[in-house]
Amino acid sequence: MRPRPISWRDVQIDSGFWGARQATNRDRTIPAIYHQSKITGRLEAWKLEWKIGQPHEPHIFWDSDTAKWIEAVAYSLGTHPNPEFEQQIDQVIDWIAQAQMEDGYANSHFIAVEPQNRWRNLRDQHELYCAGHLIEAAVTYAQATDKRKLLEIACRYADHIGRTFGAAEGQRHGYCGHPELELALLRLAQETGEPRYFQLSRYFIDERGQQPHYYDQEARDRGEDPRRFWAKDYTYLQAHVPIREHTGMIGHSVRACYLYAAATEIALESGDHQLLATMRKLWDELTQRHTYVTGGIGSIHTIEGFTFPYNLPNESAYSETCASIALIYWAQRLFSLEPDSRYIDSIELALYNALLSGVSHEGSLFFQANPLEAHPQVSPYELWNTMMTGDYYQRTEWFDVACCPSNLARLVASVGTYFYSLTPDRLYVQLYNQNRADVQIGGSHVHIEQRTDYPWDGQITLTLTPDQLTTFELALRIPRWCREFRIEINGVAVSLTPERGYAVIQREWRQGDTVMLLLAMPIERMVSHPQIRQDAGRIALQRGPIVYCVEEADNGAALATLALPFGSPLTYEFDAHLFGGVGTITGEALRLDPAQWQDQPYQSESAHEIARTPVALKAIPYCFWANRQAGEMRVWLLKS
Amino acid sequence: MRPRPISWRDVQIDSGFWGARQATNRDRTIPAIYHQSKITGRLEAWKLEWKIGQPHEPHIFWDSDTAKWIEAVAYSLGTHPNPEFEQQIDQVIDWIAQAQMEDGYANSHFIAVEPQNRWRNLRDQHELYCAGHLIEAAVTYAQATDKRKLLEIACRYADHIGRTFGAAEGQRHGYCGHPELELALLRLAQETGEPRYFQLSRYFIDERGQQPHYYDQEARDRGEDPRRFWAKDYTYLQAHVPIREHTGMIGHSVRACYLYAAATEIALESGDHQLLATMRKLWDELTQRHTYVTGGIGSIHTIEGFTFPYNLPNESAYSETCASIALIYWAQRLFSLEPDSRYIDSIELALYNALLSGVSHEGSLFFQANPLEAHPQVSPYELWNTMMTGDYYQRTEWFDVACCPSNLARLVASVGTYFYSLTPDRLYVQLYNQNRADVQIGGSHVHIEQRTDYPWDGQITLTLTPDQLTTFELALRIPRWCREFRIEINGVAVSLTPERGYAVIQREWRQGDTVMLLLAMPIERMVSHPQIRQDAGRIALQRGPIVYCVEEADNGAALATLALPFGSPLTYEFDAHLFGGVGTITGEALRLDPAQWQDQPYQSESAHEIARTPVALKAIPYCFWANRQAGEMRVWLLKS
Repeated sequence: MRPRPISWRDVQIDSGFWGARQATNRDRTIPAIYHQSKITGRLEAWKLEWKIGQPHEPHIFWDSDTAKWIEAVAYSLGTHPNPEFEQQIDQVIDWIAQAQMEDGYANSHFIAVEPQNRWRNLRDQHELYCAGHLIEAAVTYAQATDKRKLLEIACRYADHIGRTFGAAEGQRHGYCGHPELELALLRLAQETGEPRYFQLSRYFIDERGQQPHYYDQEARDRGEDPRRFWAKDYTYLQAHVPIREHTGMIGHSVRACYLYAAATEIALESGDHQLLATMRKLWDELTQRHTYVTGGIGSIHTIEGFTFPYNLPNESAYSETCASIALIYWAQRLFSLEPDSRYIDSIELALYNALLSGVSHEGSLFFQANPLEAHPQVSPYELWNTMMTGDYYQRTEWFDVACCPSNLARLVASVGTYFYSLTPDRLYVQLYNQNRADVQIGGSHVHIEQRTDYPWDGQITLTLTPDQLTTFELALRIPRWCREFRIEINGVAVSLTPERGYAVIQREWRQGDTVMLLLAMPIERMVSHPQIRQDAGRIALQRGPIVYCVEEADNGAALATLALPFGSPLTYEFDAHLFGGVGTITGEALRLDPAQWQDQPYQSESAHEIARTPVALKAIPYCFWANRQAGEMRVWLLKS
Repeated sequence: MRPRPISWRDVQIDSGFWGARQATNRDRTIPAIYHQSKITGRLEAWKLEWKIGQPHEPHIFWDSDTAKWIEAVAYSLGTHPNPEFEQQIDQVIDWIAQAQMEDGYANSHFIAVEPQNRWRNLRDQHELYCAGHLIEAAVTYAQATDKRKLLEIACRYADHIGRTFGAAEGQRHGYCGHPELELALLRLAQETGEPRYFQLSRYFIDERGQQPHYYDQEARDRGEDPRRFWAKDYTYLQAHVPIREHTGMIGHSVRACYLYAAATEIALESGDHQLLATMRKLWDELTQRHTYVTGGIGSIHTIEGFTFPYNLPNESAYSETCASIALIYWAQRLFSLEPDSRYIDSIELALYNALLSGVSHEGSLFFQANPLEAHPQVSPYELWNTMMTGDYYQRTEWFDVACCPSNLARLVASVGTYFYSLTPDRLYVQLYNQNRADVQIGGSHVHIEQRTDYPWDGQITLTLTPDQLTTFELALRIPRWCREFRIEINGVAVSLTPERGYAVIQREWRQGDTVMLLLAMPIERMVSHPQIRQDAGRIALQRGPIVYCVEEADNGAALATLALPFGSPLTYEFDAHLFGGVGTITGEALRLDPAQWQDQPYQSESAHEIARTPVALKAIPYCFWANRQAGEMRVWLLKS
């Protein structure tokens, strides 16, 4: 049996690293998103009161933002009830119910703004994408609250889509430019037990990229030349060829990973080995050649996506917050295919680094892109301003295209679902953090408690409380970054060799059994593949799953010449006063002394001894960068 | 008395480095430009036969391209007569003469395509810029051939412009978005002795950036909102404030340096000390904070210009060929203001590196931009494609906006003018290359002959042949890159301390006096200012004025990890078979062994010894890069 993640509802996280992040998410992030959604008119858009010429014209993306806000709140309600949140959502659901058309269609932009254009531009208009998020919100809200009103709306809409799209004559043979509905339909199928939603998802996956090309035809139907597609070609949206012919990571990162996540799940369910092999190959390509040391993906802002293998610029890294989420979705499904901890390694790396960088520490400011290097005079994502003096890149309250804030909020709220996976006889412990969880395994109910200061400390104590003596395998994930570990069962050391990244304890478990896992967590100096030209001659500091960066706030400016001598001592220290308590790394570095330089931009090394001055270095977790004054930041430090 | 450059007609360069470059310029580059100009319709545009709907619609830039071709040929004719070239030009001059309107106006685009829009968009339409190049071509062609037909056309056109623009009521208070006419009018004033052209140039300089802003008014007159200027604000064209208030290098590089070259000359002639101080300050800013090690300027392609101090990206460096030329023009005028060899250092550096990179070794392919790093999968100058898999950046036959090829051709053809400068009693020897020159100094005619293999060898022998015993100072430039030199007069060593970069020999010269200058030319490892983050931890190889680069053709791919150990031996060698004979640098470097890397993009340095393999390194002059197969290139090498 393939492992499945346990429900987020069964994992209670009230303290530790993720406890704090979830509290901030509930107390600051979700209210901030609600506020922004309200003042921009996103929620009220569903009232369909907008008229031409009025402000707040409903935008094609808005329904997805609202849906993700609902879903984020729903995840949070599942473990932390909040009547005020619930009331806000129920109000919007009433509006959606009133807005939904007789035939099931439900899209605030197309109903209010351009009803004549329904389904006329699947390539660009995100109509099915919005439907997907509405469906996901409905499923999660039903799971969290047992209220089914939104789920019924979603089913009616999904049925309308099912009538509209498909292989039959008279149906449209199209699919969304931005995959997401595919994932949503799989969740709807699972929630409702209706295989037709699974079939529809599979149809969208299979139809994508077929010839004659739907987007060509659709463009011609609109009187447009398909060759004048703004993104140039269909690689941007992974519709250049059918999915079974995909050979590399290409195009928009979020679209790619949503698509492949759904395709992996479908291939798993349907035993499609060819498609599974394609997915595995693409994953290897992604993680071996297109991933930043922070776990982020997508190296170019123009297409928010992939370029060529090993091309990973730091200052202009896109590493979109949403792309980390999409990568996590895909990894989770690949783990079901092949229970190897490397998929969870990718999840953990993205979670602690590229993803969390997307929100300020206090919780109400957001990054869409998460560069690995910053300079106060560089605005790396403005085409015109590229590398020019511009506004400092900093987190902002909101975006016109605000996909990331609510997406991040729903991921953080649902992070518990990544903590454990289950087969009938094996419990995988995937992520480590204070939590209490409840699972059904080996015919018993088992309560699990994790006590740990992870990721700042590598010691994790699990207490298992089965309601009866129960035999099952406890599979403890040994992260790839860990080269030494120790396990004690009820205080007695056991020797275990990890299999596919897991130390597996088979045992008859009794109430109060404790398992202590100690993961050695030295500071590592990471070096990059020789083909990654942007990191050549540099190192990144990592300890456990946390990737570090240096900031001007701690180290002064001109960070590029800050060099770490080979093998020089580095000290890890927990700073209880910084960001509510984080681990920092200090040491001695060398830097070029600007006083050695008068006017010349270049001088001969042979002409003078170019003195380097010893300076104190302090690194902080990358995910907490840009929470103090504006200034330089860099992950990759010069090697001395 | 201020030094003036001697005329290019008085310097005969038939061999050596520049002899070969000029021969290629005559034999390949100028014919290639003529061919491209013909097939694109640029020359025939002056026949005014184009009608709406026909191909080859005359473009607003074309007249400038044609003018620069005429000027390039004219420079060449001055020292190397060529009846075929002359005939081609005379044909075009006949067309221009017929095209010129009664009132003196002469612009092939505006006469043929949009006569109603004459002078309606000075900001964008390059109308006065084209006039400037026409005037420069006319002056040079007259000087080269004594034919004055084009000069008469130019004077009539300049007079028309003088009637149209000016401070008087009824005149337009405008100036060109792209400075160039200002320089041209100064040359016309000098050639004709007519001060009104000088006054007009000064008017354009002084009026620039004044309030109320001409471009605002002009835009409103066209029914446009001036705030919707495509380049955002007038810093792009240095018209944001009046020139005396300019405080830093900003906007489009070529425009900036053309403008400042003209302003420097005007300030010199009129003794405007405030303006001179501004120019000197801007020059320091340019050379200290905005210049590549190759001498190139302009670090961003979107505005073909400057960003913020010390921001000098290598792979996307713009370093436009034309900008090197503009910098040379400005430096030459600053030298007249302040005879210090640092201005000539900048000229020499740009000439041998950033400029010459703009043309292929065989002479008929061109670069507009000259990056310091290249990767076969990177197209750094396509906005959409930025850093994506694209066409390899390589020299091409022509451009839609083809400013650089003919500009480079005229610079190479006129390079002799940078060889010597003269005051009544001092002869500055600025550049070293085989040549014979004739000057009038100290009341005598002096013939000078330089014999040298410069820049491959640092020994230069000058033979002076005055027509009578003559006393004057011979000022030999000691380049900034040179830390040791030796001078012998008629075989006897003399000890001289350079003043402002010149070793000055005062003497009564007699026929056959020889001066031998030996410039020590070790291989230098250049390091960059700590603020230039893109070069941190790297070195560039330079020998004499030649900056080197490594190419994949010699060193294999993945050049980013190629590291030079501190102090490791490097060998200079003249390779007679490469590009007709160039100096190369070889040595031993270290590089990461890709075999140490399997799948992981990152690994811990502590986990394994990351072995580096010794490899042979070969560097070639940067100006000759991209003349072999496509592949990587980089100027800045890792320091081991």
